[in-house]
Amino acid sequence: MPNNLSVAIIGLGSMGLGMAQAMLKAGIKASGFDLNAASLAAFENQGGRAASGIADAAKGCDVLLTVVVNAEQTRSILFGPSGAAHAMKHGGVIISCATMSPENARGLAKEAMSMGLLYLDAPMSGGAAKAATGQLTFMASGLPEAFASAQSVLDAVAGKVYKLGDAAGIGASFKMVNQLLAGVHIAAACEAMTFAAKLGLDLEKVFEVISASAGNSWMFENRVPHILEGDYSPRSAISIFTKDLGIVSDMGRKEKFPTQIASTALQMFLMTAAAGMDGDDDASVARMIAQITGLELPKAKKS
Amino acid sequence: MPNNLSVAIIGLGSMGLGMAQAMLKAGIKASGFDLNAASLAAFENQGGRAASGIADAAKGCDVLLTVVVNAEQTRSILFGPSGAAHAMKHGGVIISCATMSPENARGLAKEAMSMGLLYLDAPMSGGAAKAATGQLTFMASGLPEAFASAQSVLDAVAGKVYKLGDAAGIGASFKMVNQLLAGVHIAAACEAMTFAAKLGLDLEKVFEVISASAGNSWMFENRVPHILEGDYSPRSAISIFTKDLGIVSDMGRKEKFPTQIASTALQMFLMTAAAGMDGDDDASVARMIAQITGLELPKAKKS
Repeated sequence: MPNNLSVAIIGLGSMGLGMAQAMLKAGIKASGFDLNAASLAAFENQGGRAASGIADAAKGCDVLLTVVVNAEQTRSILFGPSGAAHAMKHGGVIISCATMSPENARGLAKEAMSMGLLYLDAPMSGGAAKAATGQLTFMASGLPEAFASAQSVLDAVAGKVYKLGDAAGIGASFKMVNQLLAGVHIAAACEAMTFAAKLGLDLEKVFEVISASAGNSWMFENRVPHILEGDYSPRSAISIFTKDLGIVSDMGRKEKFPTQIASTALQMFLMTAAAGMDGDDDASVARMIAQITGLELPKAKKS
Repeated sequence: MPNNLSVAIIGLGSMGLGMAQAMLKAGIKASGFDLNAASLAAFENQGGRAASGIADAAKGCDVLLTVVVNAEQTRSILFGPSGAAHAMKHGGVIISCATMSPENARGLAKEAMSMGLLYLDAPMSGGAAKAATGQLTFMASGLPEAFASAQSVLDAVAGKVYKLGDAAGIGASFKMVNQLLAGVHIAAACEAMTFAAKLGLDLEKVFEVISASAGNSWMFENRVPHILEGDYSPRSAISIFTKDLGIVSDMGRKEKFPTQIASTALQMFLMTAAAGMDGDDDASVARMIAQITGLELPKAKKS
C-alpha cells in the first residue's frame, strides 16, 4: 500500500533527488527537505512536497530516508534541535543511507531505538543515474521488522538489497570494505594510467587492453574514461574518498589493524585535495600525478 | 603450413608445457628443453621432442619460444654459451614471453636483430589452464614480419594477440602497467578481506556482495576464493609479484616517476615473502596480515 505510506526524505542532492523520483514513479510521494534552496525547488518541481524544515518534512511519517554525506549530518537530522526523530510516527523506520563507521551506525541505531523507532543501517552503492531509475544497491542491516516497514520504499529505490544481519553496523562494515577497495582501485587506476603516459603508451589502447585483462577493476573501467576525455567534472568527488578512506584509516587505528594500501590511497587523495581538486572528480588523482611529474594528459574536447 | 614449421620451446614449466600441448593440438610439434628433468620428461610424454640442451632444441628452428620468468633467463637462453640465437635458422623469429622491463626487452631485441633474427616482445597473460587450451592473451610488439613469421604459433597458443606497435619494449610496457594493477588489486583484496574478518563479517557474504559491487576487480574475484577455501597452493606465487612490482619500482626510480601505491603493494608482498611464503599462492598476503594481527582465516577443508 505505497499510497498510504507517509515518507520523508532529508537530503536532496543528486542521490536524494534521484531516489525521490524513483519513489514517485512507484506511486510514493514524499515530503522532503534540504538546506539548499535550489535542491528543494528541484524536488518540488518533480512533484515532491517541499517542507519548511526537517521536523516539518518528517512530521508523522512512517519512513524517513536520510540521504546525506556522513554520520554527523545524519545525527543532526535525527537528533538535532527540531530533528526528525521526535517528529516522525512512533514505531516508524529510519533508513540511514550515509557511509559511516560501524560504531557510528550502532550509536545512531541505539539512540533511535531508545526513542521507539526502527533503524536500518543502509549505506548504498550506485550513482545518481541509478538512483533516479530505482537501481541502487543497499548493503543493509537491521531488525526484520525494520526491513518489513521499509519494504515498499526499498522496492522503489533499490535494484538489490543485501540483508546482511539484524544489527546496525553490519551494513556500514560491508560498505567500508567496499570503499576501501573502491578507493584503492581508483588511486591504482590513476597511478597506472599516468605511468603508462610516462612510458609513452597510447592511453586509449591501454584502456582497451587492460580492461580486458587481469589488471581490470570495476573502477578502472568506470573512471579511466574520465581521464581519456579530460573530463574532471565531479561524478563522485575527491572529497568522498578523503572522507571514506579516512574512516577506514580511523577504524584501523582504533582496532589496531594496519591498512597499508588503503592509507597510501588516502594520501594520494589528500595530495589531490591539497592541490586544489577536492571538489573535482575522483579521477583527478591522475591530474595530481601529472602535475607533479610534468606529464600531459588528454585535454577535454571542446563541445 | 604448420607442419613444415620447425618450432622450439625453451622453458617447460606449467606455462611452457601448456603451450606445447596447445601447439601439438594445432599440428605443430616442437622441440623443447628445460633444465628440470621432470618437466622435460612431461614434455616428451605429451609428444614433444626432448632435446639435450638449448642449442639442440633450437637447431635450425624457424620459431623459438622462450617461456621463462625474467630477462636474465631469457638473455641466457638466447645469448649464453650454447645459446639459441646462434643455433636457430637465420631470419627466424624469437617469441619472448617473459615479463621484463621495456629497457630489457629493447636490449634483447637489438641484440637478436643484430644477429639477423626477428624478435617479438610478447609477454603473456593467463594461467596454465589457458595455456593448455591455447587461450592465452599476448601483449605483443615487434616488426610486421616478426608477427607474420610467428603467426601460426601465435594462432595455436593465443586466444587474443594485441599487436601494440613495431618496437620491442611496447609489449613489455603494457604488461608492466597490467602487473602494477594486478599486484595492487591482489594486495588490496587481501587487506580488504582481513579487514572484513577483523570486523567480524561473514567472509563468504563479503565475497558475494563485493564481487557484485563497485569494489570489485578481476583479481578480487579470482583470488579471494583461495582465501575462502584456505588453499594457498601456488596458482601464481608471491615471488612473481615481488619480481614484477620490483620491476615497476625500478622503472619508477629510473624515470623519476613515483609509484606510491604499487610500492606499498610491493612491500606487502615482500613482508609475505619474509614470513616464509615466497613460493605460496599470492593470496598469501592475507595470511601474512592474519599472522601479524592474530586473525583466524578459513582453514583448508580436509579432502
